[in-house]
Amino acid sequence: MEPIARTVPQVQEHLDALKARLLVMGGLAEERVRLVTAALVERETELAARVQSSDEALNTLHIEIDQRCTTLLALHQPVAVDLRAVLAAVKINTDLERVGDLAVNVAEAVQRYLGHAPVRSLEPIPQMAGLAQRMLRDALDAYVRHDVGLAAQVLDTDDVVDGFKGQVSRDMIPVMQADPSVIEPALDLILIARHLERIADHATNIAEDVIFMVSARDVRHHGLPR
Amino acid sequence: MEPIARTVPQVQEHLDALKARLLVMGGLAEERVRLVTAALVERETELAARVQSSDEALNTLHIEIDQRCTTLLALHQPVAVDLRAVLAAVKINTDLERVGDLAVNVAEAVQRYLGHAPVRSLEPIPQMAGLAQRMLRDALDAYVRHDVGLAAQVLDTDDVVDGFKGQVSRDMIPVMQADPSVIEPALDLILIARHLERIADHATNIAEDVIFMVSARDVRHHGLPR
Repeated sequence: MEPIARTVPQVQEHLDALKARLLVMGGLAEERVRLVTAALVERETELAARVQSSDEALNTLHIEIDQRCTTLLALHQPVAVDLRAVLAAVKINTDLERVGDLAVNVAEAVQRYLGHAPVRSLEPIPQMAGLAQRMLRDALDAYVRHDVGLAAQVLDTDDVVDGFKGQVSRDMIPVMQADPSVIEPALDLILIARHLERIADHATNIAEDVIFMVSARDVRHHGLPR
Repeated sequence: MEPIARTVPQVQEHLDALKARLLVMGGLAEERVRLVTAALVERETELAARVQSSDEALNTLHIEIDQRCTTLLALHQPVAVDLRAVLAAVKINTDLERVGDLAVNVAEAVQRYLGHAPVRSLEPIPQMAGLAQRMLRDALDAYVRHDVGLAAQVLDTDDVVDGFKGQVSRDMIPVMQADPSVIEPALDLILIARHLERIADHATNIAEDVIFMVSARDVRHHGLPR
């Protein structure tokens, strides 16, 4: 058992502000995943280009949140769950920034993909993107509310996304073998599925950090009892 | 200018121990990249299987280093460059753990690849792996020695690795188009090149953290003058 440490009001205020900024950042990251998926489904090159060129807001927030964490640690020296909450924020911030980068990677693949005729069905890519967005949202809600149950749900959903990723490769390989002219766009769909799966992995990292923050129990390398 | 904060001897001792453990972890991560590349080049399925099943040492260190960081912050409340060094360690620890995961991803692709006849030349994959290993080693040396110049070199090398990644895709697509029977193994080479490029990205993240730690100057979203 760790000693009960009551959060001093000033630390609480800074932690609340930090959480609010992480939610804003999560919203931006999620929105980018939504937009780039819409670009793919609606065949909107312009929209993909917008995602590629607009990660400044996310990058600025990334630096701001890192500074908030450093200042909070230097000036207020939080302990126990508050210290773990700040360290979780440092990691979550990195994960969300990478989600932004991955949305750019998806946008690049979408641009290439849209230079070709459509390759069969896009399924299950939009489902993967929807799940990844929900995982990001739930993982951040779990962080803000210290909700271990919700974090555990995110871990479960990751298995579903992994399954879809495998399905995309399995579906695309025979399509490529049957018609070499679709090799390039089919390869881009495989890459898009892999990028989305990595976005879901970042949500999973966040969920694992939440479980550690709340319970001081490390589930990263053995998994929760599901 | 930030105020000069002299490191108290006890903090210094813990920081030195933390750095030593990160070097051990970096060595393990680098070794896994070396082994999995040897598995590919020498066509040693056994060796790839070994990389897949042996990430426990890295995972144990990951948890240990995280705990060291938390304890250091809670008990010794470092400030200024020492605080940034601990926060950099939190991030570097995550990056190295992901390198270990990526080595497993490479090993999986190598296993699949070795189930087929060789596809043309493997170049430049072993070069990419060599560069990624050197980047990891240099980035960690830069962390331990607070060497901004060495960190900047790591950022430069990342561009070379990115170039190689693009080359692998460009080389493989016509090979796949010419002979559908090599689509599966060629796809695995493309994925291996991408995993190696992500390993190099993690080394780049570490190098950026070093520059921030030393100079309190954030180069993550604008880049250094090279």
